[in-house]
Amino acid sequence: MTAEIICVGTELLLGNIINTNAAYLSEKLAALGISCYYQTVVGDNKERLLEVLQIAAKRAEVILLSGGLGPTQDDLTKETVAEFCGKKLYMDEPSKKAIADYFASRNMKPTDNNWKQAMLPEGCIVFENHNGTAPGMAVETKKNKFILLPGPPGELELMFEESAVPYLKAFSPCVILSQTVKTCGLSESKVEEQLRDLIDKQTNPTIATYAKTGEVHVRVTAKADTEKEASKLIKPVVKELKSRFGNDIYSTDDGVTLEKALADLLTSAGLTISCAESCTGGLVSATLINVPGISELYKAGFVTYSNKAKRKLLGVKKSTLQKYGAVSEQTASEMVKGLLLETKTDVGLAVTGIAGPDGGTKEKPVGLVYVSCNVKGKITVKECHFKGTRDKIRRSSVVAALMLGRSCILEYLSKEMLK
Amino acid sequence: MTAEIICVGTELLLGNIINTNAAYLSEKLAALGISCYYQTVVGDNKERLLEVLQIAAKRAEVILLSGGLGPTQDDLTKETVAEFCGKKLYMDEPSKKAIADYFASRNMKPTDNNWKQAMLPEGCIVFENHNGTAPGMAVETKKNKFILLPGPPGELELMFEESAVPYLKAFSPCVILSQTVKTCGLSESKVEEQLRDLIDKQTNPTIATYAKTGEVHVRVTAKADTEKEASKLIKPVVKELKSRFGNDIYSTDDGVTLEKALADLLTSAGLTISCAESCTGGLVSATLINVPGISELYKAGFVTYSNKAKRKLLGVKKSTLQKYGAVSEQTASEMVKGLLLETKTDVGLAVTGIAGPDGGTKEKPVGLVYVSCNVKGKITVKECHFKGTRDKIRRSSVVAALMLGRSCILEYLSKEMLK
Repeated sequence: MTAEIICVGTELLLGNIINTNAAYLSEKLAALGISCYYQTVVGDNKERLLEVLQIAAKRAEVILLSGGLGPTQDDLTKETVAEFCGKKLYMDEPSKKAIADYFASRNMKPTDNNWKQAMLPEGCIVFENHNGTAPGMAVETKKNKFILLPGPPGELELMFEESAVPYLKAFSPCVILSQTVKTCGLSESKVEEQLRDLIDKQTNPTIATYAKTGEVHVRVTAKADTEKEASKLIKPVVKELKSRFGNDIYSTDDGVTLEKALADLLTSAGLTISCAESCTGGLVSATLINVPGISELYKAGFVTYSNKAKRKLLGVKKSTLQKYGAVSEQTASEMVKGLLLETKTDVGLAVTGIAGPDGGTKEKPVGLVYVSCNVKGKITVKECHFKGTRDKIRRSSVVAALMLGRSCILEYLSKEMLK
Repeated sequence: MTAEIICVGTELLLGNIINTNAAYLSEKLAALGISCYYQTVVGDNKERLLEVLQIAAKRAEVILLSGGLGPTQDDLTKETVAEFCGKKLYMDEPSKKAIADYFASRNMKPTDNNWKQAMLPEGCIVFENHNGTAPGMAVETKKNKFILLPGPPGELELMFEESAVPYLKAFSPCVILSQTVKTCGLSESKVEEQLRDLIDKQTNPTIATYAKTGEVHVRVTAKADTEKEASKLIKPVVKELKSRFGNDIYSTDDGVTLEKALADLLTSAGLTISCAESCTGGLVSATLINVPGISELYKAGFVTYSNKAKRKLLGVKKSTLQKYGAVSEQTASEMVKGLLLETKTDVGLAVTGIAGPDGGTKEKPVGLVYVSCNVKGKITVKECHFKGTRDKIRRSSVVAALMLGRSCILEYLSKEMLK
């Protein structure tokens, strides 16, 4: 079964709001095993919506529409779909009563245009709205099923779960399941090269790569009759990926970020952590503190943007700063050394670099960043060269610091095991 | 001139990422005075992309495409547009060199598939990528102009500003100029209420409001034959806005963020600043350090996530933490008091709160945050109640801290002037 999403709303075309409904619906359709090949956004305009309906009805069986079910004059999704399907509108008494109840329960009076929301296309299947006033509906023709949902995400999502999912499941022939294998420190082209043979020969499951800052995710997606069968198809591919990428994989769980993987590693090893940052200005700490419950592991952080702060808070030597500069291997090393002395934590991460746009020289250009890690006295420093805006250089630096932390802890753990 | 947006990427159709590019491009097109009636999302599939191009090319003059310019096999936007326009691909030597330089500067070697990114359609206008490897381009036919931009938002946005805006402006029959008046601390409905009379009666310039976290921006847009005339239309409206919103306006300059406005205020007053953070975990410091050249003003930051760190690094009293808790007016006050003693700066900002998802109680629910500011000994604490995810609560807290800093410094300066 194929589906297509049409989001109706001039505010989307003006960029005033971001289209989260399309992403939500797409993800849900994929999980239901329904292929969605197109999303379209069109304004509150009858002619243009009719044209879009015409195109979509030819391409897909199910058409999901969001928005335009409100009480105002420019809400015209329902009227236009009814016209397209050759259906008349009628006053749906249960919907009218639901709207009256909704207002009564809030001690408010409906205005005349609210009753417009209870006018529905003949023969439609009504989806009750338990988070607002506009009912949704499914309108069926010989060839298509049109599912109309309200625009506000809170109303759309609840209605989709409660009414559209059971409606669609009755038609759905299969299940789609996917798992993401997350790597860090490799380029997308390198990952793809290592997967070329798998990508070329696989059809089910399929394999696709996605690049993020410093990371490449490999998504394995399988189609099957049941969830169990789909899972069985995915398993050997994920196993193969694990054997090819080894420790460059930080997680095979969709919900685990790099910072969460690092936090989990620290937890399992019983280690605490602290950070000292110059050019990233607190972003490494802030990223780690993204992880709920991190307070058990994360002890303290320093933003030592000035040389004075590096000296005073971390004990970086004046002579080091003078001889090698604030952006140097030596300073990065002393920052992370002082950090552990100061915080009495097991692991320390530090960053010092030139994020730009100014401050670069020929010897030390913008984008030169040193990240360092101290695991119980063993210090590792890594020199990085990043390109891009100030923001991108800082974000790349954060990922580099987290990656270095991860690899140093893994090394520490493997040595501990040999003892 | 009409335009249409096509975002290419199977990850969008699977709902794995939210389509922020469409919103960004729509907003920018509106600001340029170019009407956009449709947005389409299509997967990494040649046949379907060709079909979408056919439909779009009939409806609009300018077609903006994002995504599918990467080095991998499923990146096929450029190839498909070239085929649609009947253009061959050639190896663009400057683009090839830029890719080689990009890798060389990172001490990395490009893989064979990277050179694919330098293969461009004959006769295209190349848009350099200053935030990645994929060049963008404009491909022209008799009837249409196709603008191809990379998918990662950081690359797309920079390239759009640098190359696509000047390219599009050259075809625009009139000049559209807009100026953004940025307010903080007011709700969008309140701003709109105060502007209702202006919004109702104005046609040129037009006035529109945009809500961001903790901020409301008012954009004044004028259409005229010359930039000078457009500017003349905007000026009196901005003046009127200034008289209505006074100090709630932090800038009337599009490029000035709240953190930049705060940094400018500090510079003009000759004040230095430091930060101490609990739930925001370094995000206030990181946000301030977004501002290039901040090192003159920003001295040091502490991430005191644990109670121990609050005591040791900021001198918060054990009795205060025991009696009132870490999330309290008293702790926020002591944090910022200790911060100035420790850093010898003029201004200090501190944040302590419950970002969730766990850790909330009936008395202190998730979203309760205290921000505090110390200007040369004068301490102000503000209690905030935020809603939403952990991330949203933390971001709202950062804005609240910056706003508090701004208003406290303004108060300090007005008192200084009276002396």
